[in-house]
Amino acid sequence: MLESLKIGILGGGQLGAMLIRHAIDLGVNVKVIDKDPQAPCARYTSSFICADPTSYEAVLEFGKGLDIITIEREAVNIAALRELAKQGVKVFPSPDTIETIQDKYTQKQFLQSHNIPVVPGIAIQGKTELYSLESKLPGCLKKRRDGYDGYGVMVLKTKEDINAAFDAPCVLEELVDIKHEIAVIVARNEQGEVKCYDAVMMAFSEDKFILDSQIAPAQLDTSILQEATKLAEKIADAFQLVGIIAVEMFVTKDNKVVVNELAPRPHNSGHHTIEASITSQYEQLLRAIIGLPLGATDLRFPSLMMNILDSTYLNTHKKEVLTSLLAIEGAHLHWYGKIDHRPGRKIGHITIAGDTMESITAKADTIRKVLN
Amino acid sequence: MLESLKIGILGGGQLGAMLIRHAIDLGVNVKVIDKDPQAPCARYTSSFICADPTSYEAVLEFGKGLDIITIEREAVNIAALRELAKQGVKVFPSPDTIETIQDKYTQKQFLQSHNIPVVPGIAIQGKTELYSLESKLPGCLKKRRDGYDGYGVMVLKTKEDINAAFDAPCVLEELVDIKHEIAVIVARNEQGEVKCYDAVMMAFSEDKFILDSQIAPAQLDTSILQEATKLAEKIADAFQLVGIIAVEMFVTKDNKVVVNELAPRPHNSGHHTIEASITSQYEQLLRAIIGLPLGATDLRFPSLMMNILDSTYLNTHKKEVLTSLLAIEGAHLHWYGKIDHRPGRKIGHITIAGDTMESITAKADTIRKVLN
Repeated sequence: MLESLKIGILGGGQLGAMLIRHAIDLGVNVKVIDKDPQAPCARYTSSFICADPTSYEAVLEFGKGLDIITIEREAVNIAALRELAKQGVKVFPSPDTIETIQDKYTQKQFLQSHNIPVVPGIAIQGKTELYSLESKLPGCLKKRRDGYDGYGVMVLKTKEDINAAFDAPCVLEELVDIKHEIAVIVARNEQGEVKCYDAVMMAFSEDKFILDSQIAPAQLDTSILQEATKLAEKIADAFQLVGIIAVEMFVTKDNKVVVNELAPRPHNSGHHTIEASITSQYEQLLRAIIGLPLGATDLRFPSLMMNILDSTYLNTHKKEVLTSLLAIEGAHLHWYGKIDHRPGRKIGHITIAGDTMESITAKADTIRKVLN
Repeated sequence: MLESLKIGILGGGQLGAMLIRHAIDLGVNVKVIDKDPQAPCARYTSSFICADPTSYEAVLEFGKGLDIITIEREAVNIAALRELAKQGVKVFPSPDTIETIQDKYTQKQFLQSHNIPVVPGIAIQGKTELYSLESKLPGCLKKRRDGYDGYGVMVLKTKEDINAAFDAPCVLEELVDIKHEIAVIVARNEQGEVKCYDAVMMAFSEDKFILDSQIAPAQLDTSILQEATKLAEKIADAFQLVGIIAVEMFVTKDNKVVVNELAPRPHNSGHHTIEASITSQYEQLLRAIIGLPLGATDLRFPSLMMNILDSTYLNTHKKEVLTSLLAIEGAHLHWYGKIDHRPGRKIGHITIAGDTMESITAKADTIRKVLN
C-alpha cells in the first residue's frame, strides 16, 4: 500500500527535505508546497508546487487527491486544511492542533487548561498597551504568530525598551530564572500509542535566540528528565495528537520544569535522531501519520548537534570548509543546499554521534574552529 | 559549492533512490535517467528523464550541463559517457572502468592481468560451441553482459543441460568448491585515498542466485578478511577508481579467496552500511565523486540485511505484513515502492542492526516468519 500512498507536506524547507529522505525508505509519494521555487525540497520530489501554504486556495488545490497531509512549518492555512479533512484527506496533526499551536497565546491557554506548567504570560494587542504594563517588566515579548529561530522574540528590560518593541499582537511573558533549556519530542499515532525521545539539552547563541548546539541525552537528574517526559506525553494526549510535537521546556533554578513552546512538526532539537536514535523523528512522523506502529526511540549513542549559520566565511571558503568538516570522523554533515544567502540563517547542521561525550565535545570544538 | 552541483545518475532503481536519500544530506542537485517512468527514483527528483540509459543519444542529451555523472547499473552507453567526459563532464567511475566491468569476460581478463585471483573461465560465442566443450562440465555459464540477480547465470552439470543453455556470448567458469561467499565494498577518490568496508558474508536462496541475507561483519578468520580487503584495495588501484566497487568473492574449501564478480556502483551487499556504518556506501560514493574526503567505514554494530522478494502473500496482505515488520524493534525497513509486480523481484530490504549477533539472528527468524 505504501507505493500508492500520496503524502503532502506544507512547507519545503530543510525539515521537509529530511522528511523526504525518510519517505524514500518507505517508498511513498511526496508532494510539497512552498512559495520559494528554490526551497530545499524542490529538488527532491517530482511533485513540487510553488505556491503559498498560507493561501486558502493554494492549500485546497494542493490537497486534492492526497491521502495524508502533514506540515514542516506552522504558518499554514487552517481553513483549507479543515475543508480538506472534511473531503476525506487525513490531516495530521489535526487542523485544531496546528491552529492552537500557531498562536503562542492560545497555545499557552490550552496547556494551562490541561494543567501543564507554562511560563506565565499575558496577551498584548500592540505596542501602546505596553506603556501601561511597566510593572510587568522585565519580561519577554513574543509575537503571537509566525515567529521562528528567535525572530519575533525580544527581552524588554525597562520601559525605555518599549519604544523598539514589536507593534503586533504579542504575549508578554515573565522572565524565568532559567538553569537549562531542554526539549522532548513526543509521537502519537491514531491507535493512541505514545512514544517519547530522551530529553535533549540545548545551548543557544548569546545574542540570538537561535539554537547553537544540542546534546543528547541531557545530562540532568533522572527526576527532571522523567518530569519532562511526563509533560510531553500529557501534551500528546491532550491534543489527541497524530504526528509529532517538539516540546521545548525550561528547567528553572529551583528545578521546576515549565513548558516554553511547542512545535507540531519535526524540529531542530530532533535532528540528532537521524544518526543517534533507532528511529529518526522523520520516520516516526511518517509512521504516525500512515498508521504504522511507532518505532523505538532509544538513543544508540550520545550525540551533539550543531547548527551551521550563514556567514561571510562560509560563503567565500565553502569547499575548504566542507572538506575540513567531512574529514572529521563521525561528523555527519547535513547541508541544506540553500541558494540565497542571509547572514544568521540556518544553512546546515552537523551531528557528531558515537563514542563518549568527551570525544564528542572535543570534535565539536574542532568543528567550531573550522566554522569560525 | 554543493548546492550548485548537478549530479546525474544513470539508472533509476532502488540503488539510485538510496543515493538520492544521501544526496539530500549534501544538498546537491540530482538528475536521473531510466526508461521506466515508474522507476523508484522518479518520485524523488525534480529532474527525472524517462529514456534508455543504453541509448547513445539519450545519455548524451541527459549529460549536457551536468557536473558529474555516476551509475547505479552497469548497462549504460559507454560511447556517450566517453563523449561527455571529452566535453568536460566528470564521469565516475570512468567509462573504461564501467566498460571493462560490464562484460564478465573482459572483467576477468583485467583482474587476471593484475594478478588478482579469479574463478577460471573461458569465453563462449554461443550455445553451439558448448557441445565441443563437454570436458569442461560441470561448469557455471554466465552471460557476458546484462546479467543481474541471478538472471543470466546457470549451472551446466552434464551435456544434457546444454540444450537449455543461453545462446549468447557467455563465460563458462569452473565450478568452485565454495565454502563462503563474501563481499567487500571499496571506495577511492580522485586524490587516491582508498577505504574499504568490512567484509560481509552472504547467504543465497537455494533455487536462485539471488541474495537472501547478509551478515556484517563476516564471521571468518582474520587472515581471510585481510586477504579480501587487500584484493579489494588492489582492484581499486588497478582501475584508478573514482567511486565505489563492490567486490564479490568466494572463500574456497581450502581457504583461498578468489574474486567472483565486480559491480562499479552501490551494491546490495552494502545496504547495511546505511544503519550499521559511520558512512553509508551511498554517502561514500558521493564523497568520492565530488572530491571530498572519504568517510570512516567502521561498523558501529553487527547487522543482518534481508532482501524482500515479491510474492503473492506480500501483494495481498501488504499492510498487515508491513505493520508486523515495523513492530520489530531495530528492524529498518527499506520499501522500494515498485508499482508493477513480478514474483521473485526485489521490492525492499530490512536491516537489523545493533545488539548482539544472537539477538539479530532471532529477529531475522521472526521476520522470515512474517514474510513467509
